[in-house]
Amino acid sequence: MEAFRSEPVPHAVPVVGMIGAGQLARMTHQAAIALGQSLRVLAAAPADPAALVCADVHLGTDLPAMRAFSRGCSAVTFDHEGVPQEHLRALVADGVPVHPGPEALLHAQDKLVMRRRLVELGVAVPQFAPVREPADVERFVADHGPAVLKAVRGGYDGRGVWMQPASVAELLASGTPLMVEQLVPLRRELTALVARSPFGQAAAWPVVETVQADGQCVQVLAPAPGLDDEVAAGAQHLALRIAVELGVTGLLAVELFERPDGRLVVNELAMRPHNSGHWTIEGSRTSQFEQHLRAVLDYPLGATTPTAPAVVMANVLGAAAPPNMELDERVHHLFARFPDVRVHLYGKVERPARKVGHVTVLGADMATVRERAVLAAEWLSTAVWSDGWSVHAPRGAGADAGAREVARA
Amino acid sequence: MEAFRSEPVPHAVPVVGMIGAGQLARMTHQAAIALGQSLRVLAAAPADPAALVCADVHLGTDLPAMRAFSRGCSAVTFDHEGVPQEHLRALVADGVPVHPGPEALLHAQDKLVMRRRLVELGVAVPQFAPVREPADVERFVADHGPAVLKAVRGGYDGRGVWMQPASVAELLASGTPLMVEQLVPLRRELTALVARSPFGQAAAWPVVETVQADGQCVQVLAPAPGLDDEVAAGAQHLALRIAVELGVTGLLAVELFERPDGRLVVNELAMRPHNSGHWTIEGSRTSQFEQHLRAVLDYPLGATTPTAPAVVMANVLGAAAPPNMELDERVHHLFARFPDVRVHLYGKVERPARKVGHVTVLGADMATVRERAVLAAEWLSTAVWSDGWSVHAPRGAGADAGAREVARA
Repeated sequence: MEAFRSEPVPHAVPVVGMIGAGQLARMTHQAAIALGQSLRVLAAAPADPAALVCADVHLGTDLPAMRAFSRGCSAVTFDHEGVPQEHLRALVADGVPVHPGPEALLHAQDKLVMRRRLVELGVAVPQFAPVREPADVERFVADHGPAVLKAVRGGYDGRGVWMQPASVAELLASGTPLMVEQLVPLRRELTALVARSPFGQAAAWPVVETVQADGQCVQVLAPAPGLDDEVAAGAQHLALRIAVELGVTGLLAVELFERPDGRLVVNELAMRPHNSGHWTIEGSRTSQFEQHLRAVLDYPLGATTPTAPAVVMANVLGAAAPPNMELDERVHHLFARFPDVRVHLYGKVERPARKVGHVTVLGADMATVRERAVLAAEWLSTAVWSDGWSVHAPRGAGADAGAREVARA
Repeated sequence: MEAFRSEPVPHAVPVVGMIGAGQLARMTHQAAIALGQSLRVLAAAPADPAALVCADVHLGTDLPAMRAFSRGCSAVTFDHEGVPQEHLRALVADGVPVHPGPEALLHAQDKLVMRRRLVELGVAVPQFAPVREPADVERFVADHGPAVLKAVRGGYDGRGVWMQPASVAELLASGTPLMVEQLVPLRRELTALVARSPFGQAAAWPVVETVQADGQCVQVLAPAPGLDDEVAAGAQHLALRIAVELGVTGLLAVELFERPDGRLVVNELAMRPHNSGHWTIEGSRTSQFEQHLRAVLDYPLGATTPTAPAVVMANVLGAAAPPNMELDERVHHLFARFPDVRVHLYGKVERPARKVGHVTVLGADMATVRERAVLAAEWLSTAVWSDGWSVHAPRGAGADAGAREVARA
């Protein structure tokens, strides 16, 4: 008996094509299935997270691959920012409905273009300057104080950001376009996530706090604890306004710094499902993944109502040293301790600091929810309970209320 | 550029194989993705609902196909009851971990075996008798009053049940094994859904009310409105006890009749994800699909806590006459009116009374939630708003609170 590729869907349903087949595409496929669809993904490699679970997988990264992939798609969208502008423009010239379009997406690809545009719009951003020679950095630091060096294109998850501007000459010599940016004193980081459709409808989720480690988002608290209602509404309106001004179709994540005085400045923009929105799978009536599909297909958008007072997402990162327990066994133990924790694994090989999954916890009290989410994610990463909990400890020690709901036959 | 089949998952994750690739397998695949897996399905046809969305699809219905399919599976399970016992026993003899096992599954395949076993266990069931000749039916009706004729094997969704026992001779002549059963006077139908793992852990969801039309489940109200707490707990314990006594691994749905005096009698058993449990996708911390995977893999089970006070699932059935609007356009209008309604479409061609999808609505008040779910499902079926709502009506007429959460950019 031969394995076979699926035939086309037997009735007219939209086909959304996603360029890139990482975990964002993987989770978008789950949302597409509910809408009667099957996400088509363009994978760079056969073992990409979405390629492992989708029925409609194309392989390739060049323009001919994108063209073949786009044929018959109702909308083409992205799970990363890495598609060159010339490819995007070629697809648009072919008549492919690309969402977000190249003009909008450029602002998520090029930090200098983004910063300059936001300044034009009167949006608060850190002081910045392009870097053409090492002296530009010295001048900037003399004028504005402590600074951070950033690659204008291609940075993510802490890559493309240098706190020590010692390597300017070397980076410039290697052809990396650079900018320098004021190191903003900050209380914490926030994200305002919104969606906008080609028709012009838009929807915003509650503003969340994002917690970073080594430049990567590792926890998301929804809603951002203690955030003033007016400030939160202001951040949502800012994100909606940026979406309109840049002509974004699909999701827009506006990463924000909250300064010690409470003022917000925009850090980065992303126009795709975003790590800060994973909590919406269980924590919002409509997940970011379904909303992105609805937006790029110009469907009416879904309600963004939270489903619990406190939701925390924690990323599962590959541990520094391989844990002394298989991932499957770690899942087993996690489920035994926390029957209510939601687990999402991406099918990725574990490597140090690599995002291989996430967990989500929902509840009434943010501190409790956060503690449980962090314990769960750390356990899956390392096979260590950081609170010292042991399955052999006396009853009650670290026992979980959820466990008592599960009867023993 | 060639489309290609995915390579094996790059780290050791369990492979669950599901025989049958209908909507139950389709929704199980969504749950498998979150657990880092990819469901393997054995489809009867390439356009089966799960075959359209899964990466790992085998084709076939005979024992050689099942054997090839089962190779390398950590567990093999089912999305229907139609696998012959001799095939199941052959797989078990090969060493395949089949869940539920043949002995347990027999009770979901053969109504006479099931009835006799439940009687042995002291469980209340309708009066029944095997039918070998038409006179058996006449005798039964003379003794017990109004009766219903059932096929001992193979019935589902109203098929295999005859209210008029006129055709007994004809059915017997065609080789259909028959039984006759007392027509139980009933107030309503309920279902108690539980899961049980090989280790012996079990978990129960709240008991739900199921509403039938033409022998098919069309609505599920969770929890069953007005059900006495003790009666509900009794139904859960009954289902857990049956799961233990029959050695069920995976899900067990116990369909119940609630008699006018409140006593419960068992109607049917199913050992797979069940229509009465679709509400758990959004309405319970752990969905029936994830729980089934956890149970057959002998993972600790998930919390069954409801996520809202009232949850209603309504099936989308193919309309009697084709609606004058494409399904995709119906979805568009549905989303415009009800931004919070959860839609699940199965990728099936619409045919009269065929289950092509379902909707789920969550809220605080059962009556409101139910009204909205029914309106939504009817609209998707027929392109008619049964309350006369029109998009061109004045504001406020039938307007939905959820719509006001969605800002217009």
